[in-house]
Amino acid sequence: MTNPTLLILPGDGIGPEVMAEVRRIIDWFGAKRGLAFDVTEDLVGGAAYDVHGVPLSDETMAKAQEVDAVLLGAVGGPQYDTLDFSLKPERGLLRLRKEMDLFANLRPAQCFDALADFSSLKPEVVAGLDIMIVRELTSGVYFGEPRGIFEEGNERVGINTQRYTESEIDRVARAAFELAKKRAGKVCSMEKANVMESGILWREVVQKVHDESYPEVELSHMYADAGGMQLCRWPKQFDVIVTDNLFGDLLSDVAAMLTGSLGMLPSASLGAPMANGRPKALYEPVHGSAPDIAGQGKANPCACILSFAMALRYSFDQGDEATRLEKAVETVLADGVRTADLMQAEGGAPASTRQMGDAVLAAL
Amino acid sequence: MTNPTLLILPGDGIGPEVMAEVRRIIDWFGAKRGLAFDVTEDLVGGAAYDVHGVPLSDETMAKAQEVDAVLLGAVGGPQYDTLDFSLKPERGLLRLRKEMDLFANLRPAQCFDALADFSSLKPEVVAGLDIMIVRELTSGVYFGEPRGIFEEGNERVGINTQRYTESEIDRVARAAFELAKKRAGKVCSMEKANVMESGILWREVVQKVHDESYPEVELSHMYADAGGMQLCRWPKQFDVIVTDNLFGDLLSDVAAMLTGSLGMLPSASLGAPMANGRPKALYEPVHGSAPDIAGQGKANPCACILSFAMALRYSFDQGDEATRLEKAVETVLADGVRTADLMQAEGGAPASTRQMGDAVLAAL
Ligand SMILES: CC(C)[C@H](C(=O)O)[C@@H](O)C(=O)O
Ligand SMILES: CC(C)[C@H](C(=O)O)[C@@H](O)C(=O)O
Repeated sequence: MTNPTLLILPGDGIGPEVMAEVRRIIDWFGAKRGLAFDVTEDLVGGAAYDVHGVPLSDETMAKAQEVDAVLLGAVGGPQYDTLDFSLKPERGLLRLRKEMDLFANLRPAQCFDALADFSSLKPEVVAGLDIMIVRELTSGVYFGEPRGIFEEGNERVGINTQRYTESEIDRVARAAFELAKKRAGKVCSMEKANVMESGILWREVVQKVHDESYPEVELSHMYADAGGMQLCRWPKQFDVIVTDNLFGDLLSDVAAMLTGSLGMLPSASLGAPMANGRPKALYEPVHGSAPDIAGQGKANPCACILSFAMALRYSFDQGDEATRLEKAVETVLADGVRTADLMQAEGGAPASTRQMGDAVLAAL
Repeated sequence: MTNPTLLILPGDGIGPEVMAEVRRIIDWFGAKRGLAFDVTEDLVGGAAYDVHGVPLSDETMAKAQEVDAVLLGAVGGPQYDTLDFSLKPERGLLRLRKEMDLFANLRPAQCFDALADFSSLKPEVVAGLDIMIVRELTSGVYFGEPRGIFEEGNERVGINTQRYTESEIDRVARAAFELAKKRAGKVCSMEKANVMESGILWREVVQKVHDESYPEVELSHMYADAGGMQLCRWPKQFDVIVTDNLFGDLLSDVAAMLTGSLGMLPSASLGAPMANGRPKALYEPVHGSAPDIAGQGKANPCACILSFAMALRYSFDQGDEATRLEKAVETVLADGVRTADLMQAEGGAPASTRQMGDAVLAAL
């Protein structure tokens, strides 16, 4: 049997440093657990622009379509701010999402016990928090046409189009209900059906999928503004949240920050099953490229390491091995190992990216 | 000289109860401070639908255009959930905003010292917080065309259009810079220029208004998702935030919830100056109609009372009288008077809506 294939796209900023630690973890699973992967590495974002003049080359795109899973670090940096919209690092990531048709973006917002104090929220509000946000990732205002900046009379107008078809809503709703069945059995769907017709259709389709296929899951609906409020007030009321691309972008970032564990949070972006039964998949940390600390060995590799754990679970059906890796990270945190982002001002010397990787390997 | 005119629209749910207290405050200013208003009352939202079959009658709309300021309670309730989109209570409010052209929605997110403990955030994160969110209120995805639910092939598609012209961005940016000049002198503008062309135009115009007319104000730009994160992490980094209609809806609700003072927060929606020099204006609490506690005399009237204070300041140039009213509310809080929403579970008997009104009158 051939090994499963991984495409690694470290990207920009702290991407390469955190990904270097993930590669050591991958090697460990090959050597110690008999889980060998065929790994190729390539460029995305600003790193790809610097070499190819585009944030994702057609060759890399083709590779991403062929592998079993893609692991991505982060994209973006101030040196690319003045590039044309179509050449910005983000377009590389958006192209991957769109062409791989990764419609379900899973973003766990989880509070690690050892880090509860680190949140800006009171410990009792976040301790033990474990939410899964399912964000639609291939449609909505991110991709709708018409879009652009146009002349109109004697001024310009900026236009984007929010656009959802029934089938786009249907498939991401199913992904959310499936996840809820394996968790606490609750889904809350968020939109602005009180002001947007696309939200009305969203609510209707989610309700229909529920009634027809998942009546055993508890479904509620909330306006996205109220949802943002409730996330800040009492996040533990939620289990799975399903929402559109733009609301999901905002709400998942708010939820991530609430946990105090931003440098810890992974994500999975899943599409339809391929011929081998595995879903098209891309895994990446929730944090960005953090250009301010890039290249200094300070970044926390845990979010990227935990993204690989999600890959083990969702792409390779290795739930036990994923749990093993997640537990190793928790052990390391419980032992007090901290990169700079996980320390209060008064803490001692922080662990480096490499030291955090060492600690996780030791805990494995 | 004739008295200035006020149109009072109590609306639905707790709207009428909280507005009853505001009317007593208005009377007090007439009797004790020589500030008499000519007050008319009318219907909006579900209350208007019940009588007229529409959430805002043309007669009420015409009145709103003529008065010096409108005070609104709240709109909405579950009994109207099944109404057609065009008849929902919210449409009454949206029609007022649009036809009065109230483009600048001022939403202070302020943490009252006496209530800092009540936030889900740590007291040190929110104590003394005082942010002003300026939300564009008459354009963007709330009003852009095309919109609706359409047949496409063999399924339906929900469409809304995000749309901003240069002049729409220009005028709300100016409102934000003007406010910043009277505050800490900082504006942070939020959009998603990394994925939306309307955000690119937004950023460009805000920067231009700054460079040409307000170089002394400190301007920064943030992606709206990062903005949501930063609001949760360390909200005191902000002074004035300017953003579009939809991002403003979400971000101002998050900011309001952070303060722990949701039942305390007022808002002002301002348009262009009328012939008498006063801006078109509508004042309303940030909280909603709270149908679950409506009619029980439990609601906190402070947000609505403080909305009248904003009217004194922004419509009637009575900054000192506004401060007098705001100080009275702070005194009452410091004295420990609490409606149910301001109490932890273990507190004693809460003050009723009327008792809170009494206390504010006494403090005046
Ligand atoms: C980098 C950017 C294009 C992206 C988005 O807006 O989706 C990011 O914020 C995210 O949430 O993954
Ligand atoms: C009631 C609703 C239409 C409204 C909005 O979405 O603007 C509300 O959420 C607000 O923020 O004033």
